Amino acid sequence: MIIIVKQDTSKEKITSLIHSLEEQNFKTHLSEGENTTIIGLVGDTSLVDIDSLKARDIVEDVRRVSEPYKKANRKFHTDDTIVEVLGKKIGGGHFAVMAGPCSVESEPQILEVAESVMQSGATFLRGGAFKPRTSPYAFQGLEKYGIDFLLECKKKYGIPIVTEIMGISDIPLFEDVDIIQVGARNMQNFRLLKELGKLKQPILLKRGLANTIEELLMSAEYIMSGGNENVILCERGIRTFETYTRNTFDVSAIPMLKRLSHLPVIADPSHAAGLDWMVEPLAKAAIAAGADGLMIEVHNDPPHALSDGKQSLTPTRFSEVMKSLKAYMQLESKTLE
Amino acid sequence: MIIIVKQDTSKEKITSLIHSLEEQNFKTHLSEGENTTIIGLVGDTSLVDIDSLKARDIVEDVRRVSEPYKKANRKFHTDDTIVEVLGKKIGGGHFAVMAGPCSVESEPQILEVAESVMQSGATFLRGGAFKPRTSPYAFQGLEKYGIDFLLECKKKYGIPIVTEIMGISDIPLFEDVDIIQVGARNMQNFRLLKELGKLKQPILLKRGLANTIEELLMSAEYIMSGGNENVILCERGIRTFETYTRNTFDVSAIPMLKRLSHLPVIADPSHAAGLDWMVEPLAKAAIAAGADGLMIEVHNDPPHALSDGKQSLTPTRFSEVMKSLKAYMQLESKTLE
Amino acid sequence: MIIIVKQDTSKEKITSLIHSLEEQNFKTHLSEGENTTIIGLVGDTSLVDIDSLKARDIVEDVRRVSEPYKKANRKFHTDDTIVEVLGKKIGGGHFAVMAGPCSVESEPQILEVAESVMQSGATFLRGGAFKPRTSPYAFQGLEKYGIDFLLECKKKYGIPIVTEIMGISDIPLFEDVDIIQVGARNMQNFRLLKELGKLKQPILLKRGLANTIEELLMSAEYIMSGGNENVILCERGIRTFETYTRNTFDVSAIPMLKRLSHLPVIADPSHAAGLDWMVEPLAKAAIAAGADGLMIEVHNDPPHALSDGKQSLTPTRFSEVMKSLKAYMQLESKTLE
Amino acid sequence: MIIIVKQDTSKEKITSLIHSLEEQNFKTHLSEGENTTIIGLVGDTSLVDIDSLKARDIVEDVRRVSEPYKKANRKFHTDDTIVEVLGKKIGGGHFAVMAGPCSVESEPQILEVAESVMQSGATFLRGGAFKPRTSPYAFQGLEKYGIDFLLECKKKYGIPIVTEIMGISDIPLFEDVDIIQVGARNMQNFRLLKELGKLKQPILLKRGLANTIEELLMSAEYIMSGGNENVILCERGIRTFETYTRNTFDVSAIPMLKRLSHLPVIADPSHAAGLDWMVEPLAKAAIAAGADGLMIEVHNDPPHALSDGKQSLTPTRFSEVMKSLKAYMQLESKTLE
Repeated sequence: MIIIVKQDTSKEKITSLIHSLEEQNFKTHLSEGENTTIIGLVGDTSLVDIDSLKARDIVEDVRRVSEPYKKANRKFHTDDTIVEVLGKKIGGGHFAVMAGPCSVESEPQILEVAESVMQSGATFLRGGAFKPRTSPYAFQGLEKYGIDFLLECKKKYGIPIVTEIMGISDIPLFEDVDIIQVGARNMQNFRLLKELGKLKQPILLKRGLANTIEELLMSAEYIMSGGNENVILCERGIRTFETYTRNTFDVSAIPMLKRLSHLPVIADPSHAAGLDWMVEPLAKAAIAAGADGLMIEVHNDPPHALSDGKQSLTPTRFSEVMKSLKAYMQLESKTLE
Repeated sequence: MIIIVKQDTSKEKITSLIHSLEEQNFKTHLSEGENTTIIGLVGDTSLVDIDSLKARDIVEDVRRVSEPYKKANRKFHTDDTIVEVLGKKIGGGHFAVMAGPCSVESEPQILEVAESVMQSGATFLRGGAFKPRTSPYAFQGLEKYGIDFLLECKKKYGIPIVTEIMGISDIPLFEDVDIIQVGARNMQNFRLLKELGKLKQPILLKRGLANTIEELLMSAEYIMSGGNENVILCERGIRTFETYTRNTFDVSAIPMLKRLSHLPVIADPSHAAGLDWMVEPLAKAAIAAGADGLMIEVHNDPPHALSDGKQSLTPTRFSEVMKSLKAYMQLESKTLE
Repeated sequence: MIIIVKQDTSKEKITSLIHSLEEQNFKTHLSEGENTTIIGLVGDTSLVDIDSLKARDIVEDVRRVSEPYKKANRKFHTDDTIVEVLGKKIGGGHFAVMAGPCSVESEPQILEVAESVMQSGATFLRGGAFKPRTSPYAFQGLEKYGIDFLLECKKKYGIPIVTEIMGISDIPLFEDVDIIQVGARNMQNFRLLKELGKLKQPILLKRGLANTIEELLMSAEYIMSGGNENVILCERGIRTFETYTRNTFDVSAIPMLKRLSHLPVIADPSHAAGLDWMVEPLAKAAIAAGADGLMIEVHNDPPHALSDGKQSLTPTRFSEVMKSLKAYMQLESKTLE
Repeated sequence: MIIIVKQDTSKEKITSLIHSLEEQNFKTHLSEGENTTIIGLVGDTSLVDIDSLKARDIVEDVRRVSEPYKKANRKFHTDDTIVEVLGKKIGGGHFAVMAGPCSVESEPQILEVAESVMQSGATFLRGGAFKPRTSPYAFQGLEKYGIDFLLECKKKYGIPIVTEIMGISDIPLFEDVDIIQVGARNMQNFRLLKELGKLKQPILLKRGLANTIEELLMSAEYIMSGGNENVILCERGIRTFETYTRNTFDVSAIPMLKRLSHLPVIADPSHAAGLDWMVEPLAKAAIAAGADGLMIEVHNDPPHALSDGKQSLTPTRFSEVMKSLKAYMQLESKTLE
C-alpha cells in the first residue's frame, strides 16, 4: 500500500504518521522525491482502513498495490476450483451449459423445455421463479410454484437446477435447489451474500451492470468468508454508452477473472446483448476466451414468453447452436458432462 | 408505443399482428415507409409486455413514447409533493439539510455531532447504523445500537433522523426512524422496495451507481404502487470512466427529475465526489440546479472515522459551508426550516 | 421517423406542423393517444434535419426509426464487401492478419519483424510512423522515415503495409501505402475523413473510444460518400468504468456491425486490453464472433519498445498464437491468404 | 512513480532493474512486503517511458504518483492565469459569457444575434463557421464566409469573437479571430494542437466526450509546450449510459480542474444537456461550482436553426437567463466585464 503525502508537509508530521503506522505493526519505507513524498506500507494490508488513512490531513491519496480479496485470490489458491453438483462439474476443464426459460411459467412448459435442452446437451436446467423486474406492473414470477415445477423436472429427469434468489426470507424454499443464483442487481446486496455464505449449495454470482471485476471478486469474498467456498462467477454484460446492444458483453472479464481467481467463470450471452441472434456468436466468443460454462435462455414459445422473449432461443435453434458450440469446447479441451 | 416491423414482412403477418393488438383494446396506426413500416399503438401502454412484443418474429424493435411510470409522473400530478416529518418539510420551496456522520460510532460521538450540526442549521440528523461495505472485512456498522443512539439524539434534541435500511428483516428496528434511506446498491432490491411501500414513513431513495433516471423513477414507482407515496429522490453520483472523482455527480439529473416527477429531489455531494473539499462547490451547484435538499457527511474527527472519513467535514467546516449555502438557498427562494 | 408532440398542444399547431412536413414531400400519419400524440414521418428521412424539428416549440422529441447511413448499410447492399490489396483479400470469408510493431523504430527492426510475422502467417505488415501520443513529451514516431522503412519491407518481401495517418498534409507520403489507418482519436476528424474519401486506397477505420456503433458507421459513410467505398471497420475497445483492462473490448460490436453493414470488420486485441497475455483469448473470441481479420502488435524486443511494449507479443509468442488462431479460422470457414 | 514487481521474482532480477533505473539518474526505494515487492522511483518522472517499464517481464504494474503535466499544473504555477482579449478578461475573478448561434447562417442573422447578446451582457460572440457534423449529409457550416460575417460583427460592435477550427490548413483564416476553439472531437487531434501551440491567440479547448480530466490537461500541455500558454479549458458534458440528457454535465470537473491547474475553466451548458430549458439551471450550477465563464447558444429563430436548435435560447430568453446568472456571479465575487 502506498501513501502519497501532501506537498510541503513538515518532517514532524510525516514522522508522526510513520510512527502511528509502525505501532500497527506495519513496516514502512519513505521515498522523498522532488515534488512528491510517498510512504510504502508493508504487511497484511487487507485489513487496513483505507478511508481513515485518506482522511488524515497530510495524506493526498492512498493506493492499494495488492488485491483486497484473499479467499477468491489465485495467489493463495493456485489450482482451479471445481464445483460439483449431482455428478456435473464446473471448472478445471469441465464445461457446464445451463439452459432454460427466463421465467418458469407452468409445469408443462418447464417439463417440455427441460426435456428438449437435455437432449441437446444442456447439463443444468435454469428457470426463474422469482423475477427482478424494473416495473412493479410486470410479471414477477411464479415464486414458490416456480421452484416446485423446477424440482419436478429434477425429479423426473435427474437434471440439476439453477434458479435465482431475491431475498433472505426465501432461503427455506431453496433447500433442494442445486445452484442458487444471485442476480446482477443483488451483487452488492451484502446482507443476502452473508446468509448465502452459511449455506452448502454452490452460489452462481452474476456481475452487476456497473460493477468492476474487483467488486465482483469482493462479493465472492463475502460469500466465501462465511464458509461457502463454492462460488461460480458469471459475466453477463455491463452498462456502457452503446445502445444497439442492451449491455456490453465484457468478454475480457473472462480471462481476467480466470487469472485473478481460481473460481469457475461462466458467461450469459442471452442477457449480455438481449438479442436472440447474437447468442451464438457471443457464446462462441465466451468459450474461446476461456469460459467454464454458459447460461442460455431457451423458451418453447418466445413470442409468448412472460419475460425476455427477445433474447430466448427456441429448442430447435438451441439444438443447432449447441452443435456449433461443441466444436469450440473441443478446441479448448473442455468436457461437457 | 411504436412497433418497428422487419423489412420485407408480408402484409398478412402485419395485419395479423394488428388484429391481435386491437383485441387487447389498443388503437393502432399503420405507417408504411419506403424502407420501414411502423405501427403506432395508442392506449394505456404502461401495462404492455414490451418483451413479448419484441420477441415476435416480424418485429424489429419496440420503442416507448410515453413514460412507464405513473404515480411518480408529474403529468398526472402537477403540484410538487411536500414531504413533512416532525414539522420539517421537503419540497415545494422547503429545503432540507440532512447532516451527520457516515457511521454512528458511539453515543457520545453522535450526540456531539447532532448538537453541532443543529447549531449550524441542519434540519435532519443522518447517520449509518447498517453499513453496506464492499469488503466483508470492513466495519459493518453498530446495527441495532446505532439506531438506539440516533433515537437518543432525537429524544434529546427533537431532531428527526434519517438512516439506511439494508434488509426486510430489520424493518421492526426502524419503527421510530423518521425517514428510511435506501442506499444506491439497493435501489433495485425490489423485494425491499415492495415492503417499504407498505410503511408510513417517507423513503429516501438513492440513485444506483449505474441506474438511469428512468430506473430511479421506476423504483420510486415500486414503493408508491404499494401505497407509500412519500418518496424523496437522491442524486449521489454515477459511475463513469473518470477516476479523479469517485463518482460523477450528475447535476443535470436534478432539473430532469424535477421536470419528470413531482417528488422532492435532494443531492448527496459527499458521496458524489468522495472528497471533503469538493462538498461545498457541489452542494452549491445542487442548490443552483434546483435541489430540494442536501445530505452532507459531518464527523467530529474525520481521520478517525470508521468509514468515509475522506469525504467528511468537521463541525467547524460544516458551519462555514452552511453559511455560504444559505445565500444560495435565498437566491433560489428556498426556506430552510 | 417519429415526432412526439408535447402534451396539450392545440389541434391547429399540430395541423400546421403536418402541413409544413407534407410540403417537404413527406407522408405523415397522426396517432392521437390518451396522453401522447405522435406523428409518423414516411419518406427518405436520412436528409431530415432532426435538430430543427426538435427545436419546434410543440415537439417533445424526435426519434429515428431507420438508420441514418446509406452506403454503409447492408439493407441497400446485401453482399459482403471484399477489400483486395496486392492479392490479399479481407471480407466475405477471407481473413486478414495484420501484424507488426506499434511504432516503426529502425529499418533493421521493421525488416526483422516483417520477416518473422510473415513466416507465422501474417498477411499484412502493420507499423506506426506517425504516433498519436497523449503526452507531448512521448516519442512521436519516425514520421516520413517510418513510412520509408515500411516501404522497404514491402519491396523486399512483397507484403502489403498498413499504417496510420494523422493529418491531411501527410497524404502525399501515403501514396504507396496499401491500407491507410485512421486511429480511434481521429474517427470523427471529419476533415480528414472527407479527404480520404477522395483516395483510392482502402481505409482502415478504428472505432473511437467512446463512439457508438452508429457513429462508426456514420464515419464510414463520410469516406464512402466521397467516393472511396473500400472501408474496413475495426473494433479496438471502448472506454468504460472498468480499470483492470485499459479498454473494454466490445466483442458484440463485431456481429452487430456485420449485420448492419456489408463492410469487413476486424479486431485489434492488442489495444483492447493493453496486456500481452490477453491478446490470444481476445483474438480467438473475435474470430468466434465473426471477425474478418485481426491487427496484432508484435515487437522483436517488447521491453525496449518505444511505445506500447506491454501489449506486444514477441515473434516467438506470435508464432504460437497464430497456430491456435488458425484452428479457429478453420472452424469459422475463413481462409487466411 | 511506483513499480510493482511480479510475485516470486528473483533478487538478482530486481537488483538488475534497480541498477538500470539508477543509471538513468533516478533514486529508488525498495519495499519488500509479504506478498508484494515495490520499487519507488524518485526524480523527474514526467519523462519516464512508462510503457517500456511495464513491458519488462518482472514488472506487474507501474503507477504514476505525480501528474504527467507540468506547464498546466498549479503546483508549478500557483496564481490563476488570466486570459485577456480586447480588454475582456477570463480567470482570476473575471467572468466571461460567450454567446451566439451554433452555426453562423448569414450576415444579418449573426449581426442581429450579436447586438442582442451584447445588450444582455455577453462579453464574447460565439458562432460556428466550420461545423463538425456526425452525418456527411448535414449542413457543414458557411466556412470562410462564416468567419467573414463574425469579423463583420467584431468590426461593427467591437465584440471579440470565438469560433471553432477543424483543420491545420484553415489557420490562415483565423488570423483575426480572438479566441480559437478546439471542439470535443478534436481534443486529441495532436497535430492540430501542436500547430495551435505556435499561435498567439488564446485557445479554448473543449473536453472530449470520453476524455478524462487528466487527458484534457495533457492536451492543454500539448498547446502550452509549443509556446502558447493562453489555454482556456471547457467542460461540455461527457458520455455516460444516461439517455435522458444528450451528455452528462460533469460539474465536478470544474472545481477539480481549478485545483489541479491555474488555467481558466468555462462551461458549455448548451451542449452538455442538449435541451434549451436546462441551460439556465446548468449555467447556475457551473457558476456555483467555480467556473470562470460560460458558453451559451443563442439563436434568433431556434426552430429554423441549421444546427442544434433544440438547445438554443432565443435572445429574449437569454436576456432573462443573464439576469438570474448575474446574481450568481455576484455571490461568487466574479466580475463580468
